[in-house]
Amino acid sequence: MSRAVLLRNVRPLGGPATDVAIVDGRFAATASPEADIIDGQGLLMLPGLVEAHTHLDKNLFGMKWYRNEIGPRRIDRIETDRREKKRLGIDPARQSMRQAVATLALGVTAIRTHVDVDTEIGVANVAGVLETREKLAGWVDIQIVAFPQSGMLIRPGTQELMEEALRLGADIVGGIDPASIDRDPVAHLDAVFAMAQSHGKPIDLHLHEPGELGAFCLELIVERTRALGMQGRVMVDHAYCLGMLEAATLDTLAASLADAGVAVMTAGPPGRPAPAVKRLREAGVVVCGGSDGPRGTWEPYGRGDMLQRATMIGQRNGFTRDEDLELALDVCTVQGARALGLAGYGLAEGCVADLVLVDAETAAEAVAAPPPRRVVVKAGRVVARDGETIGIAAP
Amino acid sequence: MSRAVLLRNVRPLGGPATDVAIVDGRFAATASPEADIIDGQGLLMLPGLVEAHTHLDKNLFGMKWYRNEIGPRRIDRIETDRREKKRLGIDPARQSMRQAVATLALGVTAIRTHVDVDTEIGVANVAGVLETREKLAGWVDIQIVAFPQSGMLIRPGTQELMEEALRLGADIVGGIDPASIDRDPVAHLDAVFAMAQSHGKPIDLHLHEPGELGAFCLELIVERTRALGMQGRVMVDHAYCLGMLEAATLDTLAASLADAGVAVMTAGPPGRPAPAVKRLREAGVVVCGGSDGPRGTWEPYGRGDMLQRATMIGQRNGFTRDEDLELALDVCTVQGARALGLAGYGLAEGCVADLVLVDAETAAEAVAAPPPRRVVVKAGRVVARDGETIGIAAP
Ligand SMILES: [Zn+2]
Ligand SMILES: [Zn+2]
Repeated sequence: MSRAVLLRNVRPLGGPATDVAIVDGRFAATASPEADIIDGQGLLMLPGLVEAHTHLDKNLFGMKWYRNEIGPRRIDRIETDRREKKRLGIDPARQSMRQAVATLALGVTAIRTHVDVDTEIGVANVAGVLETREKLAGWVDIQIVAFPQSGMLIRPGTQELMEEALRLGADIVGGIDPASIDRDPVAHLDAVFAMAQSHGKPIDLHLHEPGELGAFCLELIVERTRALGMQGRVMVDHAYCLGMLEAATLDTLAASLADAGVAVMTAGPPGRPAPAVKRLREAGVVVCGGSDGPRGTWEPYGRGDMLQRATMIGQRNGFTRDEDLELALDVCTVQGARALGLAGYGLAEGCVADLVLVDAETAAEAVAAPPPRRVVVKAGRVVARDGETIGIAAP
Repeated sequence: MSRAVLLRNVRPLGGPATDVAIVDGRFAATASPEADIIDGQGLLMLPGLVEAHTHLDKNLFGMKWYRNEIGPRRIDRIETDRREKKRLGIDPARQSMRQAVATLALGVTAIRTHVDVDTEIGVANVAGVLETREKLAGWVDIQIVAFPQSGMLIRPGTQELMEEALRLGADIVGGIDPASIDRDPVAHLDAVFAMAQSHGKPIDLHLHEPGELGAFCLELIVERTRALGMQGRVMVDHAYCLGMLEAATLDTLAASLADAGVAVMTAGPPGRPAPAVKRLREAGVVVCGGSDGPRGTWEPYGRGDMLQRATMIGQRNGFTRDEDLELALDVCTVQGARALGLAGYGLAEGCVADLVLVDAETAAEAVAAPPPRRVVVKAGRVVARDGETIGIAAP
């Protein structure tokens, strides 16, 4: 696909206004003579937003409002989730398409999604999301995690289904709460790492375990990452425990996460303990951001807006200084790309031309009060303008 | 002002579609024959949003982006604030007009604002906001708190200036951190309550004091509220301490706040301890919501959107059930009106017709993902459509 574009008068990350050339879907030094010209109107140019953690298969986008009357325990939610999926007819192909298209219109150019695999639905949700990934090839990059939402060891047959999901095309081995859900942290992690090794895939684990229990699980994860040479290929999600430890314990743990190349994903949860983003970044840990479950049965909030997520991460971390707001944006862009292992990400020459134009003076302003997305470009192609996708629509 | 309006096909709080009559600026049983007809298109109708705590005099709306490089301590912020006010030329009349008009377009029909009074600026900011209140009479209700931002007892002359502000037209006596800023909780509160008594005005106190220190200050406030018969006329802002106490201490304190009629304002701060809204409401405490300082030197975030604030309060409190999201909305509407002592607030017949129409199925959905404000009505008059004010503009 040869796409030559000249973006006139844009301000990359709030710098001076300039023209930006794109050739064959990548940023180039000089414009092609037959380039399509886009008037950037002096808008702020950001790299494509990276959604590092969501659940494309079970949102309720475009469906009737779901009245949430679910109890407060995690298990209430897991059980409701499994039940309502059937009762409400949450079609994974349709719903993943809806969320991916909506989030694309908001400037997200890459998504990592966990997709439920369990002994009731089997790999149907993975198949549905694979269909969406196919349809959206070239529009938005989608990585699929085979995710044992209902538990893995406690539900015999789940591991085999996860293996099947990987054979079908899932990219990453998932896991969930090795202690509090699967009841055996060592056995859970050994199984996850073994599966990753035998399939040559990265790992991405939900970890809600609190305090010292979470810290212990992180130690187990670090040990296995090192032992199996999986540095840079393991991510841990939420890691509430990192917001619950004493300073000295946290520092030690952060250093080993950095050293083992284990990335941390945070949603910037306002009502939960949360990893201290700045401290982790200073320790060298890759920290990325995700929407988790917008408009679902777990949580009713949001639309999968990763710029709004940067705001939330900034607010959760008490950021008020510009350089800190820029860090929150970095988490939802550059760090996300690192965590997902995206090749050629960024605004530099030669990088894939994934970008968003917004009406803001500086990157910090865009985080402080997310403005509408004026133009979204994926690999050099304009895929959305003013909140509406172009050439692709949600079912 | 005789305003007869017939709002056709709206869904009050998500109930069945109905027609709503407004006569002389109030909800009426039957429409006037010469009523202007507004097509409500089946939109969700909410009561006017109530901004119970902001600082209209020192925002940066419409000004060049302010690069925040301020240190982390409260005193760094207070000092920067005082300095930057002059350096940046933050004109209180102009800026209060800008924020009030912007927030009005977002569906806010009543605002309580703290306005700085100190020995450097004197009552100039109060005079500026009084000008805005005058201009916006009939557009949005504004209550003014004479606020000793830089301290009261520690800056001799401040009390006299607050008295002057009250004589000029400020409605409420403010206060700030009786212990950590003014260094003498009893003397600070005695002075505030005495001023309120002698002027016959309510009280509204910033209280950032943490943990047990905050609890002690609240006890002092409750004692004075009772002793002086000021039940229902005292508000405490932020009250982070209410998110830091042991359960039994909190229960006792909540019961006395309820009994003494002391209201609590929360911004739902994602990075701070916060009052547990549901627990306080269950104890009978009036809990309202506020934006505090959108786009200012203290904090860069937001635009003064009180529906987004309901989202934040819901998220900060871990609300996921619909009835809890409805509570978050109640905090930013009905409870706010109670805390501010607004007469005739609500959607019932005879109430002042302050309302907002949005495209959402239910009130919970409007909180989960705040939609654009389609129509805003103040006392029966359409004051904004699709985010643009009608007949009034910011300078
Ligand atoms: Zn998740
Ligand atoms: Zn304040």
